[in-house]
Amino acid sequence: MMKKVLNNTISVDCVIFGFDFEKLNVLLVDRVLVDEKTGKELFSDLTLTGNHIFEDESLEDAAARILFDLTGLENIYLKQFGAFGDTERLLKPNDQAWLRASGRDPHSRILSVGYYSLLATEKVTLKWKGRNVKWYPVAEVTDLAFDHYTILQSALQALRRELLYEPIGFELLPEKFTLSQLQKLYEVVLGVELDKRNFRKKIARMKYLIPLDEKQKGVAHKPARLYMFSREVYEKTRKEVFDFNI
Amino acid sequence: MMKKVLNNTISVDCVIFGFDFEKLNVLLVDRVLVDEKTGKELFSDLTLTGNHIFEDESLEDAAARILFDLTGLENIYLKQFGAFGDTERLLKPNDQAWLRASGRDPHSRILSVGYYSLLATEKVTLKWKGRNVKWYPVAEVTDLAFDHYTILQSALQALRRELLYEPIGFELLPEKFTLSQLQKLYEVVLGVELDKRNFRKKIARMKYLIPLDEKQKGVAHKPARLYMFSREVYEKTRKEVFDFNI
Repeated sequence: MMKKVLNNTISVDCVIFGFDFEKLNVLLVDRVLVDEKTGKELFSDLTLTGNHIFEDESLEDAAARILFDLTGLENIYLKQFGAFGDTERLLKPNDQAWLRASGRDPHSRILSVGYYSLLATEKVTLKWKGRNVKWYPVAEVTDLAFDHYTILQSALQALRRELLYEPIGFELLPEKFTLSQLQKLYEVVLGVELDKRNFRKKIARMKYLIPLDEKQKGVAHKPARLYMFSREVYEKTRKEVFDFNI
Repeated sequence: MMKKVLNNTISVDCVIFGFDFEKLNVLLVDRVLVDEKTGKELFSDLTLTGNHIFEDESLEDAAARILFDLTGLENIYLKQFGAFGDTERLLKPNDQAWLRASGRDPHSRILSVGYYSLLATEKVTLKWKGRNVKWYPVAEVTDLAFDHYTILQSALQALRRELLYEPIGFELLPEKFTLSQLQKLYEVVLGVELDKRNFRKKIARMKYLIPLDEKQKGVAHKPARLYMFSREVYEKTRKEVFDFNI
């Protein structure tokens, strides 16, 4: 049985980040508008993955559903980072043409609630309603449909801040990883270069980062030691209050 | 002319924090339901201040309007901290009775976007549509109408985190303040006791905290030096990337 959509004024957009050991990527969907009569392509651009919410669904459930439909994965890290309701958010010409072509009121306003999620890209096989979904390097994205570029930047900002506070970076890595991979992840997400020695010193203080009796396999260079993140140790040793930075 | 409400499914709730040099307070509204026939009070409880948004209004504009209607103040610090759309959020018995009595569909779902704002309480005169609005100590609030207690806790968490990153605490203080007042503010919001000597050491590093040639007046104890916060100096000296804390 088809589930009923709650209403046409609330939607959820997902900013799905992935890390491939080199750069931070985001999942985007091709949006192609074809002239019905001529079959000619009018435009093609990119959007985030989003959907309306169902009557019996919380916002978070809707975000998890979108993620599941797209990747087949459950229990993925999901974080709400903002609600977007500007009066102009659907008014760009491409977006207006798209809304008209799909039978929706181009003058309606839709409030979108944004969630970002983090995936180790190597795990993922993508499929979404027959539409073309691909990873794009975040650094190379310059424009998106609707206000999705604003939403993406807002997600990135939220991710950066969260990364300074919570051990969420590990969500972007496989279960076992090297310290160089971890450093690269921080560098790529925060957009900085970190000094290797200082980084290792910080690492040495993280009791929840467990060195394994195991090394990398199949690499050209000298294989590095593998580590894992222990959430259990993290929860037991975390400080109650962080130092303030103002 | 009456402005038109966008729709009945989206609202904005404001968590308005104030600091009185002793404790963190929040503005709450009395909600009293009276039996129309008997005139008997059925219940009274407390809610946050909230409202629907108008057709031509962004979410932030709506929050600023609520704040203005309530306090007459403009350009107040406002920060979006979350969207609340759980399926159960309007289902408590009092809330259902309230919705019915005010002619609204008790089975509808409303998505609420939360903004918190910060006020130095001494500045404020309150008036709101003839309803009773008062400051309550945050620490003493144990329950609120709808999911407003959850929203309040979420705002508090967001405020605490923001306070560690940005110089927003000054919004809760008058223009000129003492270091003891600043320390008390941090202690009260973060719910910790801070060591005075360490606190003063941190303070000494904050170039944007400007000592004035002026002291407190009219206090029983030895008057302390007054300080002011310079946003200009802050913007010029802020670090681009904070140290990470994981």
